[in-house]
Amino acid sequence: MVRTAGIELKTKGNADVNDITHQVKEVIRESDLQDGVVTIFTPSSTSGITTIEFESGAISDFQRLFDEIISPKRTYAHNARWGDGNGHSHIRASLLGASLNVPFKNKNLMLGTWQQIIFVDFDIRPRQRHIVLQMVGE
Amino acid sequence: MVRTAGIELKTKGNADVNDITHQVKEVIRESDLQDGVVTIFTPSSTSGITTIEFESGAISDFQRLFDEIISPKRTYAHNARWGDGNGHSHIRASLLGASLNVPFKNKNLMLGTWQQIIFVDFDIRPRQRHIVLQMVGE
Amino acid sequence: MVRTAGIELKTKGNADVNDITHQVKEVIRESDLQDGVVTIFTPSSTSGITTIEFESGAISDFQRLFDEIISPKRTYAHNARWGDGNGHSHIRASLLGASLNVPFKNKNLMLGTWQQIIFVDFDIRPRQRHIVLQMVGE
Repeated sequence: MVRTAGIELKTKGNADVNDITHQVKEVIRESDLQDGVVTIFTPSSTSGITTIEFESGAISDFQRLFDEIISPKRTYAHNARWGDGNGHSHIRASLLGASLNVPFKNKNLMLGTWQQIIFVDFDIRPRQRHIVLQMVGE
Repeated sequence: MVRTAGIELKTKGNADVNDITHQVKEVIRESDLQDGVVTIFTPSSTSGITTIEFESGAISDFQRLFDEIISPKRTYAHNARWGDGNGHSHIRASLLGASLNVPFKNKNLMLGTWQQIIFVDFDIRPRQRHIVLQMVGE
Repeated sequence: MVRTAGIELKTKGNADVNDITHQVKEVIRESDLQDGVVTIFTPSSTSGITTIEFESGAISDFQRLFDEIISPKRTYAHNARWGDGNGHSHIRASLLGASLNVPFKNKNLMLGTWQQIIFVDFDIRPRQRHIVLQMVGE
């Protein structure tokens, strides 16, 4: 069986890290599925999905990595062509990836104790985001 | 239900970025599934799959990132052992990842407006590539 | 149908790269599924999953990348807060990703000839690890 749901999120941009674990759990709880896999997908080219231990230290270390390897302070061919200033946001999103798959069993997400699901908004301004949750299971 | 399909592609190598969105859409359209998830998987250790806004600026910014963090101009232990010159290709592929999952509903891929699915060939010569599309749905 | 299995693994830490291809194949062979997708998921915030050509050269090149872009020799806000010394492990894990999806058909994983599935333990000490394998198929 396939079930589709979504999460709506207001984000702040500039590698804003949002813990969406609770919302994903809620969607699985409210579905009629017991076991399966949830695909968490961002239909956007300036944001990504991964997991992290959601605490302020790890989050700022994570943001520093992207500031270093894909700095906003450089020139980007995307910006030169389109003038929208978010060239680095696109490259960060492509590297991190748009989808994550998490198994669930007896309605429980099989995450680690210190592991949360995060949506990272790399765009350079606040956005209203829609994240797709596609569950396949039984 | 599980449905298997594939995409055949001639690539140029050296971080050649190929937009395969249209082919993935065609495969879903021609299948007997309405809703589900498609796993796009490259059975190769020198290529990867992700999404990007497919325009020449973002593509060249994306290629620059890999030239910088995994440069072809350095020594690689893989090359020293096997003499095949594509050590950097392997590391780039492992970092980017071999699979991407995209949900579809009513036969439509749930991509963002400016988001395309790309196959990136990191090998150092033209290749004939086969990409696996595994659909699970109903 | 959904089937759940797991792999138990003793790891050495510090970007220890473990080939788990054989174990994943075994789990699929022993299941009652013929075709589908296996989600390989690590319920941990200091490890990741990807594919590579599993040979000592490529492995050491892969480890060098992480030493360079996410060095253990720097200061990390996570360490400053929690004093556990594995700040870099967390960031490496978030970048590489906690899940990988591999299609299978007629009980065969659709991997490339030189492509193996690896579990990378980024933590700084030996660990006993459990990896989740969730199969969806028929």
